[in-house]
Amino acid sequence: MIVPEILLVQSRHRAGSLAAILKVLGDAGLVVENISAVSRDQDLTVWEITVEIDENDSRRVYEAINALPNARILGTSDRVFARHRGGKIETRSRITINSHQILRDIYTPGVARVCLAIEREPSLVWDYTARANTVGIVTNATAVLGLGRLRPEASLPVMEGKAALFATFAGISAVPVILADAYDAEAIVTTVQRLAPSFGAVQLEDIAAPTCFEVEEALRARLDIPVLHDDQEGTAVVVLAALTTVTRRLGRPLETLRIGHLGLGAAGYGIARLVHIAGARTLFGADIDPRVCARFAALGGTILTLEELLERCDVVIATTGKKDLIPAERIRRGQIVFALSNPEPEITPHAALVHGAAVATDGRSMNNLLAFPGLFRGILDLRARRFEDAHLLAAAQALVALTPEKDITPDPLDPKVHEAVAEAVRRVGAGDDHAP
Amino acid sequence: MIVPEILLVQSRHRAGSLAAILKVLGDAGLVVENISAVSRDQDLTVWEITVEIDENDSRRVYEAINALPNARILGTSDRVFARHRGGKIETRSRITINSHQILRDIYTPGVARVCLAIEREPSLVWDYTARANTVGIVTNATAVLGLGRLRPEASLPVMEGKAALFATFAGISAVPVILADAYDAEAIVTTVQRLAPSFGAVQLEDIAAPTCFEVEEALRARLDIPVLHDDQEGTAVVVLAALTTVTRRLGRPLETLRIGHLGLGAAGYGIARLVHIAGARTLFGADIDPRVCARFAALGGTILTLEELLERCDVVIATTGKKDLIPAERIRRGQIVFALSNPEPEITPHAALVHGAAVATDGRSMNNLLAFPGLFRGILDLRARRFEDAHLLAAAQALVALTPEKDITPDPLDPKVHEAVAEAVRRVGAGDDHAP
Repeated sequence: MIVPEILLVQSRHRAGSLAAILKVLGDAGLVVENISAVSRDQDLTVWEITVEIDENDSRRVYEAINALPNARILGTSDRVFARHRGGKIETRSRITINSHQILRDIYTPGVARVCLAIEREPSLVWDYTARANTVGIVTNATAVLGLGRLRPEASLPVMEGKAALFATFAGISAVPVILADAYDAEAIVTTVQRLAPSFGAVQLEDIAAPTCFEVEEALRARLDIPVLHDDQEGTAVVVLAALTTVTRRLGRPLETLRIGHLGLGAAGYGIARLVHIAGARTLFGADIDPRVCARFAALGGTILTLEELLERCDVVIATTGKKDLIPAERIRRGQIVFALSNPEPEITPHAALVHGAAVATDGRSMNNLLAFPGLFRGILDLRARRFEDAHLLAAAQALVALTPEKDITPDPLDPKVHEAVAEAVRRVGAGDDHAP
Repeated sequence: MIVPEILLVQSRHRAGSLAAILKVLGDAGLVVENISAVSRDQDLTVWEITVEIDENDSRRVYEAINALPNARILGTSDRVFARHRGGKIETRSRITINSHQILRDIYTPGVARVCLAIEREPSLVWDYTARANTVGIVTNATAVLGLGRLRPEASLPVMEGKAALFATFAGISAVPVILADAYDAEAIVTTVQRLAPSFGAVQLEDIAAPTCFEVEEALRARLDIPVLHDDQEGTAVVVLAALTTVTRRLGRPLETLRIGHLGLGAAGYGIARLVHIAGARTLFGADIDPRVCARFAALGGTILTLEELLERCDVVIATTGKKDLIPAERIRRGQIVFALSNPEPEITPHAALVHGAAVATDGRSMNNLLAFPGLFRGILDLRARRFEDAHLLAAAQALVALTPEKDITPDPLDPKVHEAVAEAVRRVGAGDDHAP
């Protein structure tokens, strides 16, 4: 397994001693990602050298460095784990509490007046608490990343990651809600209903299909706050944006293309639905799970076999989680191939392009970080009761507008992207459907 | 109702114009709490003047100021509501996310390695997520402050206040969990059980008796993380500390005193239980609710009438929520009277002292902020599975040790207090009863 590691290496102050260390790394085929001097004293320097290294190779490399005359490995630290230590998020007070007057205002007795005001006029909760800026990130840990079902607590790093991204890119306070022992839709739905007064909106995350569909539908019907299943709608916004960009560049409008969806789980179904609403004239799909096929058929879709789909479609969007599912020799000349499963795609872009695909990409460009912070920022600002398809379509268009010429999606680290998505959502408006 | 208000007053640059404004306030019996110049231009200054003012008097005062030759009221803002606008807490990222490398480490694909490590070894969740520093503050909003049952969302300002205090005084990330439609114990318990993987500990808050007892007992039995009901144990720690201080000063050891508990709800029961464990030889109580009386009797307590209790006890601790319940003429010479109901005590300290009480206090000195941040800081640091009585007793002793000579409790804004409580809890240890 490839592990990003930080090597702590001590070197003597001799001409060429650092060069010798870097040569060992270079000879081992390792790319140096970062290097910095941690400490220097009379004769010695300690360097932090960051490399991506295969666990199996590391011992050999360390021995080679230790064999140098002027260098010694002091230790290593795993950068990913180091960045997770103590967790990735924290709750902070927005108020500096340094006087008895402030304490009396924000706690007893002052807070009682705010409680009573909300009791009399419930809509004031949106002004005088953090609710209007708080999103609950809810999971039952049944479809965590590409890893499938995990122990509930093992999904917490993902939810904290989402929350850190919400805070960084949209100024939203997100709260991980990890549900134990909630494997049927009703258990999830009743729990989220109970918690709803704490949140301004709910993001469903990593809940396996088909339960996720039932959960989202029920919550949208029962709650008066927006609910979004990121694996469906969030991913769909990003994929629609990329597909729009690609088809425009090829001069082949979406409406003229036969589009096939390989894999009809949360992501596949969400993408198919949104691409269809955006104007796709066909709705072809394939999956081995009859339950999700039935759902796709109910949407008006046609179920094909894998072979039929590859044969008949101009665009193939794969979200099956199955590495190498698409045989390269089945790729048709001019086909557009989005093989989106992480970490291993259904076909590598290289193989697809070699076999004639006009455009081929994998999941690395389809970061759903492009969509969810702006979607929630916009919907919370609107104080809308629900996400509408118009919000999703507008968000996708905003991404298309910001896509650099050489890429198929914008840079998710660019703050302008999230502001543009939020603004697109706000411009659609909430209609009459405001939160109470 | 007395309202803290900030007056925005414009005055002309004339000698005595500010004095004239302050004279109006002084003549109206108002104490100026703060004053600052917000803006100054050629001829005019805008002042922010903070006063506590009765809503009914305010118009008259404003008119008097406007009648001055060189002053004008521009507006008023309510300081309490101003401090609540937008909420009192926020989630922040602990990591600066400004490179693709960091993004890959804390989100996909890096995060998957942390998830898998926790899946293989669940105890790693305490190291690589924020769980070990996160407390869920759970309420069903049935006993909010002294206000009784409110709409769930109307309790949110209290829970956010608690969370802001947790963050400020103990560096703990707390999450308000407001439960809708959870009025029986089982509904609360099953919901909290489902949520438990998100939290390192649970604080129950503002849940009415007797449901709160059943909820706490069931959660302590079913969860492997610490659970504390602040209205019981938190309050009890503070009251025990104050009682210890008072009785020591009087040279009347706790063991020699007959102690009566007026009101046996969450606070009363919690206080009675802890004071008894601390060495009180009697356990007398009175309440009008037979359900809580039965519970008190099961603890070994003796139920008295109000009159009997006042007649027979050396110490009266009242938590009934009933203003003026204790007739001043019933106070016995030398009695110790803690009339703790907020905002209006069962008897004012003044009245009790006039009628011969040796010591009398109301709830203002019994801020449970003195206990809960340190209790949770200590128990989380221990990674203990549960709070034991020994932790509570040690926390009370820590408060006694830090109480200034002229007071009966320490200053809750003093950071040393919270550190001392945490350290006392840590010194007790977790025994063999560690979290998994």
